[in-house]
Amino acid sequence: MVLKLIAAVTPVFRHIHSTKMAKSRFEYVKKFEMEDKLLLNSWIVLRIDGKGFHKFSDKHNFEKPNDIKALNLMNKCAKRVIQDFNEIILAYGQSDEYSFIFRRDTKCYNRRQAKILTNVVSLFTSSYVFYWKEFMTTELLYAPSFDGRITLYPTDKNLIDYVSWRQADCHINNLYNTCFWKLVQTGGLSPKEAEETLRVSCIRINNFVVFNYNQTAKLASNQKFRI
Amino acid sequence: MVLKLIAAVTPVFRHIHSTKMAKSRFEYVKKFEMEDKLLLNSWIVLRIDGKGFHKFSDKHNFEKPNDIKALNLMNKCAKRVIQDFNEIILAYGQSDEYSFIFRRDTKCYNRRQAKILTNVVSLFTSSYVFYWKEFMTTELLYAPSFDGRITLYPTDKNLIDYVSWRQADCHINNLYNTCFWKLVQTGGLSPKEAEETLRVSCIRINNFVVFNYNQTAKLASNQKFRI
Amino acid sequence: MVLKLIAAVTPVFRHIHSTKMAKSRFEYVKKFEMEDKLLLNSWIVLRIDGKGFHKFSDKHNFEKPNDIKALNLMNKCAKRVIQDFNEIILAYGQSDEYSFIFRRDTKCYNRRQAKILTNVVSLFTSSYVFYWKEFMTTELLYAPSFDGRITLYPTDKNLIDYVSWRQADCHINNLYNTCFWKLVQTGGLSPKEAEETLRVSCIRINNFVVFNYNQTAKLASNQKFRI
Amino acid sequence: MVLKLIAAVTPVFRHIHSTKMAKSRFEYVKKFEMEDKLLLNSWIVLRIDGKGFHKFSDKHNFEKPNDIKALNLMNKCAKRVIQDFNEIILAYGQSDEYSFIFRRDTKCYNRRQAKILTNVVSLFTSSYVFYWKEFMTTELLYAPSFDGRITLYPTDKNLIDYVSWRQADCHINNLYNTCFWKLVQTGGLSPKEAEETLRVSCIRINNFVVFNYNQTAKLASNQKFRI
Repeated sequence: MVLKLIAAVTPVFRHIHSTKMAKSRFEYVKKFEMEDKLLLNSWIVLRIDGKGFHKFSDKHNFEKPNDIKALNLMNKCAKRVIQDFNEIILAYGQSDEYSFIFRRDTKCYNRRQAKILTNVVSLFTSSYVFYWKEFMTTELLYAPSFDGRITLYPTDKNLIDYVSWRQADCHINNLYNTCFWKLVQTGGLSPKEAEETLRVSCIRINNFVVFNYNQTAKLASNQKFRI
Repeated sequence: MVLKLIAAVTPVFRHIHSTKMAKSRFEYVKKFEMEDKLLLNSWIVLRIDGKGFHKFSDKHNFEKPNDIKALNLMNKCAKRVIQDFNEIILAYGQSDEYSFIFRRDTKCYNRRQAKILTNVVSLFTSSYVFYWKEFMTTELLYAPSFDGRITLYPTDKNLIDYVSWRQADCHINNLYNTCFWKLVQTGGLSPKEAEETLRVSCIRINNFVVFNYNQTAKLASNQKFRI
Repeated sequence: MVLKLIAAVTPVFRHIHSTKMAKSRFEYVKKFEMEDKLLLNSWIVLRIDGKGFHKFSDKHNFEKPNDIKALNLMNKCAKRVIQDFNEIILAYGQSDEYSFIFRRDTKCYNRRQAKILTNVVSLFTSSYVFYWKEFMTTELLYAPSFDGRITLYPTDKNLIDYVSWRQADCHINNLYNTCFWKLVQTGGLSPKEAEETLRVSCIRINNFVVFNYNQTAKLASNQKFRI
Repeated sequence: MVLKLIAAVTPVFRHIHSTKMAKSRFEYVKKFEMEDKLLLNSWIVLRIDGKGFHKFSDKHNFEKPNDIKALNLMNKCAKRVIQDFNEIILAYGQSDEYSFIFRRDTKCYNRRQAKILTNVVSLFTSSYVFYWKEFMTTELLYAPSFDGRITLYPTDKNLIDYVSWRQADCHINNLYNTCFWKLVQTGGLSPKEAEETLRVSCIRINNFVVFNYNQTAKLASNQKFRI
């Protein structure tokens, strides 16, 4: 895509008085901003997801199935977020996603959704680029990005089930990936054969794989609690 | 604040069948996600603001009143956003803020507010850290962040007035800052005296300042149009 | 369904001072109310629909295809709404529905959605029951109800298309109903045969029907403009 | 205000095929409707308030401080609502207001806010007019209306505090009104003197008033539970 950028326009100088008039004449547009306060006394769950991280991890040669360095970088970013937002009580991450849970009575940014959401996503993202060198051995080739969303949960049970959902998802993905790459790297199967094998049955998930999986699972699961 | 992080919990291995059951048992929590589609056929204005950039520019010795290198870095980040989001038709920046205007009929992320908002904020932020070295001569000391918000404007007039509002704001700030730093750097006033001078009257805004201001204004104002 | 209602509980008398304390102790629940202001400078279209009016019109022996008396009652209710809400600039009705369009700059109830919506729906509904005797010859057998929704339209074109949509809908329904009842009442077909006839083809829509339809259409279409 | 209504416009007859085309050409406006689903698993409280009922009760000579007949009419309307909406578990009323509480897991209208809100408000309103004659001895002079709002409460405690808030409010108002009208009707004070008396102190709330208040409070408080 070709972008055509015209030169910056020099603002014409005007008497400061008329300029202020001008500003106030336009200031009404501020009233179009909508209030977006989150319901009081409900759990605020903010989940961040890497955008296009399948390609990103390929380009940066992440180790399969789990790149410990990349996971540690994710953890570092989460720690930075937790440091700045002390009303986060739990952070849970896997792969290229991270969930942050705010106290149900948090007054952070007066519970304004966009404020909370963008500040967390932005700090997480800039930390990812900022700390890259500290954790990774390859060079960062391009600026990655993360999206985010906020979901409310009214009860403790709903919140616990949310975390269980992410944990079960993490477990299933980890198990699958671990088996897949074992079959490829140790078993000598092609990626397609490995996929086929895992799709058709799970019989080949032998003790060796399970043992091995349990060893790495501890590192591949990132979980932080504020006490 | 001291953070206590407990060790990562190793997910207990379970038969893959029961795990999938577990996942689907918790999956209901996904239904708590709320739809946040933006009204059709209205201008989407997304404005990004640096968080704590007064301190940030101090710590990184930004030149006063306008650090051309820092402004060019902001422009570079905006260009990256425009490249990825080809439904943005206008980007306008000043100081540590940038406004992006999406076509009123944009189908970007099916007009989902959080998706658009967080993807743009995140890409802008990571570009800021990624391209820092390319533009700045000092070292980046810590990860900066930006917040963002989306506002809708129903008519073309409202949109034009929005841009005029930001332009007038830019102009007033620029004029003030230019005069302030002239009084300090050339006029030999202390910051407090300069502030006092500008607050009490605008008589001292002499021809020299105006001339000088017009020279730099072109660079200090960043404006991009997609044609 | 059997309803069990327990007797009203007598509030225990307490000193007025402690009662006020009690009230303020609970008053925090008011903060759970969410702001629901409608976007500025956009057309507010409020459409009311009769609930279960197929059955309602049967039970009250409405004439087919159009009961002029019932339509006039609808019009009367719309007039009452227009009298109380002088920022409505257009009201358009057909069958058991009515659309009310508020000025795009209306400040009615400070543009609070629920306030506007419920006040209009309620006044329309109570007028329907209140004026029933004035227009209808049968007795009102039970309390009818209407639901309502508000939709925003950013441009004049969108608004005009909304009205065109309702008009086309009105026209199609009227045409179908007129033909259907002609076939039944004059043509001697059973309702099922008439439905079949109209579904399979439109060949039987002869000149007689068309002529007749045009005569009644004027009465069956209710449209009011505020100038 | 003078209203000018122009004559109804006769829809021009067109072939049914082209009409359907026309309809579908405009049907895009339906997409402007916004989803308004209420957060899952949270208590839905819908409160109805009479509009201008101070004047309404004056015009219809309601007995002071509590008109038992009018309260019974309110109760009758609430019963009608409860009959149609069997997911309401509690209804609590006082004066010209009524609160309806839906089960936290209600699937009523798929939890669409405007649907639930307008249907309840409309049925309550039409019942008020429909049953008027059954309860009141005076004639209904004009069509009354009610507004409504929905508020969500995430926890049982919040919900209980909501009901406590309305009860405390009911109690305070009842106590005040009872004293006020006793002072006027039995004590021979003018309304202004009575107001002054109650504003300055509560010393005159003697035993007689309290006794009397407790007698009537039972009737003046309307509370229904579904078991």
